[in-house]
Amino acid sequence: MPSVYIEIVKECPVTGARAGILHTPRGGFPTPLFMPVGTRAAVKTLSPEELKEAGAEVILANTYHLFLRPGEGTVENAGGLHRFMNWDRGILTDSGGFQVFSLGALRKITEEGVAFRSHIDGSRQALTPEGATKIQEALGADIIMAFDECIPYPADYAYALSSTERTGRWALRCVKAKTRGDQALFAIVQGGVYNDLRRMSAEYMAALDLPGYGIGGLSVGEPKGVMYEMLGAVTGCLPKEKPRYLMGVGTPDCLVEGVALGVDMFDCVFPTRVARNGTAMTYRGRLPLRNACYAEDFLPIEEGCGCYACRSYSRAYIRHLLKTGEIFALRLLSLHNLYFIARFMRDVRSAIIKGDFPNFRKNFLENWQY
Amino acid sequence: MPSVYIEIVKECPVTGARAGILHTPRGGFPTPLFMPVGTRAAVKTLSPEELKEAGAEVILANTYHLFLRPGEGTVENAGGLHRFMNWDRGILTDSGGFQVFSLGALRKITEEGVAFRSHIDGSRQALTPEGATKIQEALGADIIMAFDECIPYPADYAYALSSTERTGRWALRCVKAKTRGDQALFAIVQGGVYNDLRRMSAEYMAALDLPGYGIGGLSVGEPKGVMYEMLGAVTGCLPKEKPRYLMGVGTPDCLVEGVALGVDMFDCVFPTRVARNGTAMTYRGRLPLRNACYAEDFLPIEEGCGCYACRSYSRAYIRHLLKTGEIFALRLLSLHNLYFIARFMRDVRSAIIKGDFPNFRKNFLENWQY
Repeated sequence: MPSVYIEIVKECPVTGARAGILHTPRGGFPTPLFMPVGTRAAVKTLSPEELKEAGAEVILANTYHLFLRPGEGTVENAGGLHRFMNWDRGILTDSGGFQVFSLGALRKITEEGVAFRSHIDGSRQALTPEGATKIQEALGADIIMAFDECIPYPADYAYALSSTERTGRWALRCVKAKTRGDQALFAIVQGGVYNDLRRMSAEYMAALDLPGYGIGGLSVGEPKGVMYEMLGAVTGCLPKEKPRYLMGVGTPDCLVEGVALGVDMFDCVFPTRVARNGTAMTYRGRLPLRNACYAEDFLPIEEGCGCYACRSYSRAYIRHLLKTGEIFALRLLSLHNLYFIARFMRDVRSAIIKGDFPNFRKNFLENWQY
Repeated sequence: MPSVYIEIVKECPVTGARAGILHTPRGGFPTPLFMPVGTRAAVKTLSPEELKEAGAEVILANTYHLFLRPGEGTVENAGGLHRFMNWDRGILTDSGGFQVFSLGALRKITEEGVAFRSHIDGSRQALTPEGATKIQEALGADIIMAFDECIPYPADYAYALSSTERTGRWALRCVKAKTRGDQALFAIVQGGVYNDLRRMSAEYMAALDLPGYGIGGLSVGEPKGVMYEMLGAVTGCLPKEKPRYLMGVGTPDCLVEGVALGVDMFDCVFPTRVARNGTAMTYRGRLPLRNACYAEDFLPIEEGCGCYACRSYSRAYIRHLLKTGEIFALRLLSLHNLYFIARFMRDVRSAIIKGDFPNFRKNFLENWQY
């Protein structure tokens, strides 16, 4: 048995939705699962205790950022990421691929890997499949990701083909480079927006027989319909008994549709980023709390929400904090938004278990305004 | 019995230090007491629960800031400051005098009060003794302060005399304007750096027979020796059975010396402001955690400290958060510094009660480096 595996509890008879438990060395976590992002070994503004209160089970940290600062050696010397950041539940580290490719003109891709300049000090750096694996072993997350290239949108077929094949070869090199037995390595399916390349990549990765699979290179600018088509193609080719993780997706409509297409895990900065812009997420849509209409609104962000922010503070108070630049506002909104997403995922899961997911999905998408 | 009064538990036989209990409608709080500053109805970066964990009993909020944003009417409509900000212990509001006078060229003082332009939008505003009292009644703190002029340093004798006399007349107008019986009004002793004016002001205010007295206009640039001389002159003239509150002072050496001169209450942004600059306060002096020497220092901020930051995180982790701009670092340092100051005040108090304050003071001042 690998250190991380999924137990499927219930499948939707109509859609591809599944409810399960992601088993990890840090415990079993219900799926579908949303993972908050703690890029630099901290989910912005929040403490680990607050993340737990918000229902977070697995959080994501970024290899690229931690490699540059403080360096994986420091994290390793601290006793690993869990101890460094005081988080005893699950951690997943991405491979750094996505961040490195986002550097644009600052990076150069070869078969060996990617040479780039640090966005912090311009220093010359490199990441390879072997290097990214070694860094992630030093960081010590429970789930680590294979080094991949996130194909930009749009990209022509020839480029997408050669990049997808290279990502496949890189995944194999990550498998060979891996030495720790207590971490699960997930490969990342690429293929751009080409149905056949997505299937080719999924089949190639499936053949590596890894404990789980990421689906990358989506939500990078393509229309949502294209994303859903690609997702369907990929999950159709991935083994049913392994977890599927759609990377970088986190708006409620995409979460529901991703689940319907068989996805088990998601991560996204969306809930915490919009929080820091002053926006609360609710079942009725978004609440831009800086707006003047909330100046004397003494209701909680969302009536019926059990989060600390909603139990203790009014929209008027949070608006006041936002308008005066008080950091506490960002904490309250980050906490609320993560609590909202966790609650939403629990609702999705319980709809699947009750056999009511198709209805839930329909009702939600009809009423969701964003 | 007024709504706020002090019960003196023990007096130092050598110095003027006193240990007591400040009784308020929100409970009794041990003195000497340090009050964290929550300028805009929030102690920067922290939640009320964290403030309690840090040992905060009474916090300060600013009339000037809350008058401009969100406006005292909004706070009143919210049910008052305690409810607005979810704080059920003591609150003291200053009168706005200090902030208005800090505006320099933007304000004009007359016998009536102060006309000024808002630092936010340049709008024309005014504060008078009656206005400041009315605003503080709307805000609803447990202790409110009389409107005063903070005399700049240096200021000549003639100016200091006329300003101190006017502050006296203003205090009387505040007494007359006050309507709520559940709030305690403290007057503020001024007098610049002139011994006789300080005594004159203290005697004038003492004659008003208020439940407590602020000592203002100190720590505004004058040498510490001058501040201590003024303090001694003032506390010698104030009634022993009333609380004395030294405004805007909060470095540990000044706290100890203030206590030795008979002060019961202090407030200062110092602990939270230096926290946001990356500096931790400890019994051995300050720790500038951004420094490279902490990069692989896996000790807590201060060994033996029981605060959440010290129980859970290393200097290396906090330094990493500071270097990468993570807000969580500011929370951890703010919490630690307030915890440190509260612990320090408890140590001062217990030295007074044990009859050991002169020794405590000597040892502390000999070892304190800043």
